[in-house]
Amino acid sequence: MTKPTLETLRKGIDEINLQLLELLNKRGEIAKEIGKLKEMQGTKRFDPVRERESLNAILAKHDGPFEASTIQHIFKEIFKASLELQEDDHSKALLV
Amino acid sequence: MTKPTLETLRKGIDEINLQLLELLNKRGEIAKEIGKLKEMQGTKRFDPVRERESLNAILAKHDGPFEASTIQHIFKEIFKASLELQEDDHSKALLV
Repeated sequence: MTKPTLETLRKGIDEINLQLLELLNKRGEIAKEIGKLKEMQGTKRFDPVRERESLNAILAKHDGPFEASTIQHIFKEIFKASLELQEDDHSKALLV
Repeated sequence: MTKPTLETLRKGIDEINLQLLELLNKRGEIAKEIGKLKEMQGTKRFDPVRERESLNAILAKHDGPFEASTIQHIFKEIFKASLELQEDDHSKALLV
């Protein structure tokens, strides 16, 4: 087997970046739907119990090269961003 | 069309979380390969030009619900984690 070159490896990373982007966008769209639903139901957008359960489910499946704390940190950033999306929608709703 | 329930939407999020985890792990494995290659070639692991180009390529494809700055922030965290992986490998190599 020939060793992969830096260029080939970087192409792999570039492809994964775009797949990550696509998944983040899909996730953002669903998070917005959840935000709207909670708005209608009058429930709070931030749900620390659900967030902890989600993190636990992710960490239970984690067997990759990163430290568990690193995976947790990245996902917390994603959760925070999704919550901000829902709050943006809420602020816009208040303005109309 | 029936409206999705909170439960259905959350299941969607849970599935995406695990797909994100899988991609992050794949990305981490490739980053480690890159680290080893650079180690052999004696080149620096952190390459700000490459990082900027990667971010630009991601942002050029970005058309989702998140702010561009949010996407950039999340990917910078992923880049940082990957670099740390490479550095961990380097430190271990120095110890043997």
